[in-house]
Amino acid sequence: MQPVEALTVALADRSYDIHIGQGLLREHACFADVMTSDTVVVVSNDVVAPLYLDTLQVALSDYRMITHLLPDGERHKTPASMLAVIDTALAGGAARDTTFIALGGGVVGDMTGFAAACFMRGVPYVQVPTTLLAQVDSSVGGKTGVNHAAGKNLIGAFHQPVRVVIGLDSLATLPPREFAAGLAEVIKYGAIVDREFFDWLEENMPRLVAREPAALRHAVRRSCELKAAVVAADEREQGKRALLNFGLTFGHAIEAGSGYTQWVHGEAVAIGMKLAAQMSGIDVDDCRRLESLLSAAGLPTETDAHRADDLLAAMGHDKKVLAGRIRLVLLESLGSAYVTADYDSARLRQVLEGMAVA
Amino acid sequence: MQPVEALTVALADRSYDIHIGQGLLREHACFADVMTSDTVVVVSNDVVAPLYLDTLQVALSDYRMITHLLPDGERHKTPASMLAVIDTALAGGAARDTTFIALGGGVVGDMTGFAAACFMRGVPYVQVPTTLLAQVDSSVGGKTGVNHAAGKNLIGAFHQPVRVVIGLDSLATLPPREFAAGLAEVIKYGAIVDREFFDWLEENMPRLVAREPAALRHAVRRSCELKAAVVAADEREQGKRALLNFGLTFGHAIEAGSGYTQWVHGEAVAIGMKLAAQMSGIDVDDCRRLESLLSAAGLPTETDAHRADDLLAAMGHDKKVLAGRIRLVLLESLGSAYVTADYDSARLRQVLEGMAVA
Repeated sequence: MQPVEALTVALADRSYDIHIGQGLLREHACFADVMTSDTVVVVSNDVVAPLYLDTLQVALSDYRMITHLLPDGERHKTPASMLAVIDTALAGGAARDTTFIALGGGVVGDMTGFAAACFMRGVPYVQVPTTLLAQVDSSVGGKTGVNHAAGKNLIGAFHQPVRVVIGLDSLATLPPREFAAGLAEVIKYGAIVDREFFDWLEENMPRLVAREPAALRHAVRRSCELKAAVVAADEREQGKRALLNFGLTFGHAIEAGSGYTQWVHGEAVAIGMKLAAQMSGIDVDDCRRLESLLSAAGLPTETDAHRADDLLAAMGHDKKVLAGRIRLVLLESLGSAYVTADYDSARLRQVLEGMAVA
Repeated sequence: MQPVEALTVALADRSYDIHIGQGLLREHACFADVMTSDTVVVVSNDVVAPLYLDTLQVALSDYRMITHLLPDGERHKTPASMLAVIDTALAGGAARDTTFIALGGGVVGDMTGFAAACFMRGVPYVQVPTTLLAQVDSSVGGKTGVNHAAGKNLIGAFHQPVRVVIGLDSLATLPPREFAAGLAEVIKYGAIVDREFFDWLEENMPRLVAREPAALRHAVRRSCELKAAVVAADEREQGKRALLNFGLTFGHAIEAGSGYTQWVHGEAVAIGMKLAAQMSGIDVDDCRRLESLLSAAGLPTETDAHRADDLLAAMGHDKKVLAGRIRLVLLESLGSAYVTADYDSARLRQVLEGMAVA
């Protein structure tokens, strides 16, 4: 077995470990100690399953496996898809002590987690994220859910996994666009809470883009550490956790505005981070550094013309709205973010309108 | 304002009060201190709303009210009905700090609670139970959910309300069958954890059936006290809370077997309690006392012929199954119950087959 790094997400009786390393998807030891019965429900999708399901079956050879494959893509992140997971689980004889396993990217993880949250009022689940985005962000922290026509993730639950198993080898074969989308989240951590990590990313972005294993390992590990610390401090997003939404409120609106087809999630967040930085009024050089780093990662920082009104309306349906006022995550400086509802609405409109300028 | 009795369900940061009294549905004070915004989503159904929605509006006159009416009946306790609540909430502009309010019986409460659990990953809700069954059982303890074709409550969440407001006056107009169904749960508490209460019920059943206010107040209060204590000791049904399932495993099977049409829930539980008592092998006199008390409450203790095989299969889909073995709640004696998977399967079949004998 390759060396495994383990981090803990400290949440009292809901604490769990994140295992990070090469070849982990075939390791019994990464799963065995969190199983509570001889049955597992493995949820994946029709793109990821052909690549990794056989490997995972090596690790899970001692268990009866009920498999459910979701169609690939954000537009299938619906209540109906989640209910189909539950149909399969029940038809296969899953019970209250069955463990669910999410094998795939963020969409698979969010839906599997939500299905596990609702199945018989909650069963344990393991996250096995195969995309960079899911490895550094969505698999850690227990946010699960599905989309509604009115906006993303409007239906869901906080339900922590019992384990996260990150196999770094899957990053080697990730399509470039998906890989870059993950880097957006990595850059986000630097921008909001760790200036030193931001500096490291500027220096090492070429190594990351070349997918050098040592660089990837550091980037994934540091991102997970930062996320774990934020989640441990504020599990249900009453305070600090909201910082993780940097770029997200803008990003969700951009995704909704393009019908979830033009941009993958991380790309929309990249554009959103640039907008949020502009809105922050930080030093122009720091704004440019963020934009350059995003570009170096292969990410967009601009999008086609959206009407500012549509974006503002879409932002009004974001969960981050409290008492009718859009709250934004803004930067004090690179490496330090804050949440506020106290900003100039005229400036917000200006920033959104300015985005259309190529 | 009439005298209000208040009980606390002690669950650390999820603790909440149960208010019990006459005329409470029109009392601002029963709601105001748990509101977190100026908007509420009131969920009721087309039978209850005409009776009590106007009254509740008196208490909620300071709030913007989004109303959703469910169709009446257990067969509408589906994911689709729950999602319709969320559609209405979003269309009305509900946000993360909106409070949901369930006005109705157990079905309304379970669905509203589940919608609140899933809406933007969880918003607060208040239970305003209008049936005896909901007042003494389902409104307290945070079990929420909907049915699946494979069985009852297979999709749901543990999500505690922030307040339970019990207006005793609604019991005066409850249809006799619904009223008796609630008495089944009251009798259950006596049978499983409080012999003294069981004795009191035997003595006072005529007063309860006549709906004497003082008797009702005592029965509701004592039932809520007993339920609150059990829930506080075991919120997520890892142990003691399972005792509350006395009669339920049989009852769910009987309900499923009759397509949820022949019996209301409490009636099925009454039949289930008689079966569970027979299965327990307690003193024959005590068995007869339980049966007599159920009959005195106007409850059935027998049902048409079901095939024992069908019931056993239906019981296999109950959430109370662990590792493939049906667990049963049985009586040691009147007032003392225990959970076991260690029983004679031949006897279980015999008891189920015996049920068919009128």
